[in-house]
Amino acid sequence: MEQLTIVKIGGKIIDQKEKLHSFLNDFHAVPGRKILVHGGGMQATDIGDKMGVRSRYINGRRITDDDVLKLVTMVYGGLINKDIVAFLQSIGCNAIGLTGADGNAINARKRPVADIDYGYVGDVDEGGVNKNVFVVLLNAGLIPVLAPLTHDGLGNLLNTNADTIAQETGKALTGMFDICLVYCFEKRGVLQNAADDNSVISTICVDDFDRLKREQVIAGGMIPKLENAFAAIDEGVHRVVIGHASELSHLVDGKSGTHIR
Amino acid sequence: MEQLTIVKIGGKIIDQKEKLHSFLNDFHAVPGRKILVHGGGMQATDIGDKMGVRSRYINGRRITDDDVLKLVTMVYGGLINKDIVAFLQSIGCNAIGLTGADGNAINARKRPVADIDYGYVGDVDEGGVNKNVFVVLLNAGLIPVLAPLTHDGLGNLLNTNADTIAQETGKALTGMFDICLVYCFEKRGVLQNAADDNSVISTICVDDFDRLKREQVIAGGMIPKLENAFAAIDEGVHRVVIGHASELSHLVDGKSGTHIR
Repeated sequence: MEQLTIVKIGGKIIDQKEKLHSFLNDFHAVPGRKILVHGGGMQATDIGDKMGVRSRYINGRRITDDDVLKLVTMVYGGLINKDIVAFLQSIGCNAIGLTGADGNAINARKRPVADIDYGYVGDVDEGGVNKNVFVVLLNAGLIPVLAPLTHDGLGNLLNTNADTIAQETGKALTGMFDICLVYCFEKRGVLQNAADDNSVISTICVDDFDRLKREQVIAGGMIPKLENAFAAIDEGVHRVVIGHASELSHLVDGKSGTHIR
Repeated sequence: MEQLTIVKIGGKIIDQKEKLHSFLNDFHAVPGRKILVHGGGMQATDIGDKMGVRSRYINGRRITDDDVLKLVTMVYGGLINKDIVAFLQSIGCNAIGLTGADGNAINARKRPVADIDYGYVGDVDEGGVNKNVFVVLLNAGLIPVLAPLTHDGLGNLLNTNADTIAQETGKALTGMFDICLVYCFEKRGVLQNAADDNSVISTICVDDFDRLKREQVIAGGMIPKLENAFAAIDEGVHRVVIGHASELSHLVDGKSGTHIR
């Protein structure tokens, strides 16, 4: 099967023009078919502040009310997505920006209200990723660039985590492509010693993961990241790589980052 | 040749949810292949006011400086485009939202500075419409929904009039489809008597146009609209219709509006 590389980029780099452009040049150089998924960075918060749209947070998670949904639709689906697409086009990468509503690419449902009402936050439906539209675009030589927005099929856009979008898209396309999922963030990978950026653990299997959790080498936000990575592998994704955005080419060719198989 | 209907919608209706949804239902009912081009409405101004982004106008035309470009990228390319796409998807219309940067759909160049620097305003290049991407999308059963934004291929998005986008797209696709261009606005068509909404002139040819200009029946903003319509016909567009957004189905089937052939 042909390889499809799905790269997720998020965090501060989204707001740092030079670093973002350097990353996008590296993305363009990734061989074969590929998809980019981007997060939101801090621009939604900054622009929201200017507009007087204040995000409420519960347990550190942003609540997506009507005004916040409008804000993220503008900033994620408009500003960030289109700036990335226009830059990629300028370097010869035939990008096409999409939210989950475009071409009915990703269906989700509003997260049910249990203790907390997160508002317009979407969890991707079973079978919610529309494989056909991705295949049509990829076959036409287009490079989908996905904003962290889905839709519910009832006319509502929904705010969906970019990691989730990358993972669900990867899982959905496993039957058609040999999927490599690359999560870029601000660390060089999973570190043996949090204080030492060069202590990257190059490969992790499930047994290692259980041991490293017991030893508290892996803790905090890295735990759900790796749990999701193993879940993706279980569902047929060929490999998952976690590493620093500045090392994308080496994350793809296996020379950097933490590889989950 | 197969028919392709390109519908342009702009003005106040963009900001009026119920009327817009009713229009989009009518658009969904238009038979055959189709493309929607939307304008910006007043939302960019309203949101700009909230953000403290003040548009400067010279001779009634908005100057697109850095901040205004960001604003229109968010509002046209994000908020308005994605809301339209999500609504169309909810009624079973497989819409896909695009700016001119997406799939390199429409290339333009920044308007040269003569007396006035309009800023990031784009005039569509000769051959600037990428026919292939439209054919790929239409052949896949997708309905392109175009925001009034183009790009210069150098990484910059540009603000481009929605009428122009509709017209250039129509002209570019004349070799492949039998093009019907429909401009929806707030009048029922070209009126014989401006005070009488029922005095719609049903058909206009070039000779009529010259005479009606001399008689000052046609004046103001209608003159460039019709000049553009005749230019489109000259370049192979099969027909152009101008009329009220609430009468879309009858504009398409020839029972309402002003038809230019």
